[in-house]
Amino acid sequence: MSIKVASKDQVDTILTKYDTFLFDCDGVLWLGDHLLPKIIETLNLLRSHNKKVIFVTNNSTKSRENYVSKFENFGLKVSKGEIFSSSFASAVYISTILKLPKDKKIWVLGQSGIEDELKEVGYTTIGGTDPRLNEPLNLNDPNSMIFNLDPDVGAVIAGLDLNMNYHKMSLTLQYLLQKPELPFIATNIDSTYPSKGLKLAGAGSVIESVAFAAGRQPMCSCGKPNPGMMDAIVAKHAIDRSKTIMVGDRLNTDMKFGRDGGLDTLLVLTGIETMENVEKLATDEQPTYVANKLGDLYEYLQ
Amino acid sequence: MSIKVASKDQVDTILTKYDTFLFDCDGVLWLGDHLLPKIIETLNLLRSHNKKVIFVTNNSTKSRENYVSKFENFGLKVSKGEIFSSSFASAVYISTILKLPKDKKIWVLGQSGIEDELKEVGYTTIGGTDPRLNEPLNLNDPNSMIFNLDPDVGAVIAGLDLNMNYHKMSLTLQYLLQKPELPFIATNIDSTYPSKGLKLAGAGSVIESVAFAAGRQPMCSCGKPNPGMMDAIVAKHAIDRSKTIMVGDRLNTDMKFGRDGGLDTLLVLTGIETMENVEKLATDEQPTYVANKLGDLYEYLQ
Repeated sequence: MSIKVASKDQVDTILTKYDTFLFDCDGVLWLGDHLLPKIIETLNLLRSHNKKVIFVTNNSTKSRENYVSKFENFGLKVSKGEIFSSSFASAVYISTILKLPKDKKIWVLGQSGIEDELKEVGYTTIGGTDPRLNEPLNLNDPNSMIFNLDPDVGAVIAGLDLNMNYHKMSLTLQYLLQKPELPFIATNIDSTYPSKGLKLAGAGSVIESVAFAAGRQPMCSCGKPNPGMMDAIVAKHAIDRSKTIMVGDRLNTDMKFGRDGGLDTLLVLTGIETMENVEKLATDEQPTYVANKLGDLYEYLQ
Repeated sequence: MSIKVASKDQVDTILTKYDTFLFDCDGVLWLGDHLLPKIIETLNLLRSHNKKVIFVTNNSTKSRENYVSKFENFGLKVSKGEIFSSSFASAVYISTILKLPKDKKIWVLGQSGIEDELKEVGYTTIGGTDPRLNEPLNLNDPNSMIFNLDPDVGAVIAGLDLNMNYHKMSLTLQYLLQKPELPFIATNIDSTYPSKGLKLAGAGSVIESVAFAAGRQPMCSCGKPNPGMMDAIVAKHAIDRSKTIMVGDRLNTDMKFGRDGGLDTLLVLTGIETMENVEKLATDEQPTYVANKLGDLYEYLQ
């Protein structure tokens, strides 16, 4: 059963037991463009105790570079190496696991975060933020991209696109249907994400429409809770899993990611989940700890 | 096992055996805006033999009125009463089966065909073709519709929308998530439809993204193969099922619709299916007849 973080002693135990803290971002550090309470103080506290902090986000709309700026805008100083985004994880997957030749192009359903990370490892992308895709699909134009698929495309990657439209969906579908040999990769499969007090459609819901139309599911989802992402983090930072804790706001991605990766877990209730959702789970599927908010770690020490 | 229509005798048998012909439209009469060969002649042939013809389409983007015009543009004269579209079937379902009070509004994810048919039975629609939904979703605007759901909405209906975008998806999702008591109705669930030699995403694929995000499936799909649509056609036209044949281009909607409704069936290969797809089926699931094209009925008689 989960331990509710509700005293200074419990925080002291956490600070003693773990030397690496993996954080989900949306719903844990901030909600949309609103920083959650006492986040700066909590991260400063961890750094002052020489804890390693790593930020693991399924938000593929941004590259790691963009994320460093986003943190800076909140007054948080982090390095690019401390960030693992699903856009980065996807680029790593395609280049090091799939070993797709670098002269192949990649069709992107998604935003610039995916394009930037793919370019950084050496690929050319098409689709994505191409402004022509913001126009309605015109089936009367023989020059439309839909009648002129690029023969050099070697993979299709799909993630969250806040400018998703029928044109993008249709193009992506053509690559999936007409070129069944192309690997189809999802950045992540979250069905929703929290923003401004709402639940909005996540990458999983955007991807589901083209997957349903094409009759094929992605071969791999690179973000949480894929254990490949954890393996990459552990390898890069040489961390000890028994001394690492995964902090997140979602049971089916963050907490599963931590648990499947052999880590203890801390669920914060500032995002998508409630205590009722936790209590519905079998005891061994519950997070190690539950806190009302991440900032409680700082506040209970005062 | 299916009988391949390949001789004058077979056409004579069909003309003797059936007095009512139900037709799917896209893929049977036309493909996109291209009329298939000998359609005018075949329909004239049936009318000259005093056959009743009824057009049953899952395309919800048009109303029956729009369909009459579409037929006219192809040089085909049909009456509104001969047309059953999934937009019309949905309006009938909501007013006569759900009996939703007429002072309730209906949130529409879809095009004007749905709006027009709902208005014709007396409902007010919101969403749908509202031009504000063509703008990007703006979460920084407190006046955005997403923060101001209409309390008078009494149902959500979703169908094909060739202008589908993230804004429309997000609004539809809010009604489904925040108002779980609202009935959620699909016009139809075709995953794809044929156009200009391509398979494009159908209503089912558009709906799947919001259904996946909301974690709830539509309570009813009003188009083919829903037997409710067949019951409505049989009742309205007082037809004898044993003397009626369903003609279509899709095994999983048209042929299933006919077979489940107790009709014989004719599959034409001008749309989405191939003979290989037919042969993969168990004998009792195959269509009664298969023809290369509907126009063969006319051509074999010459």
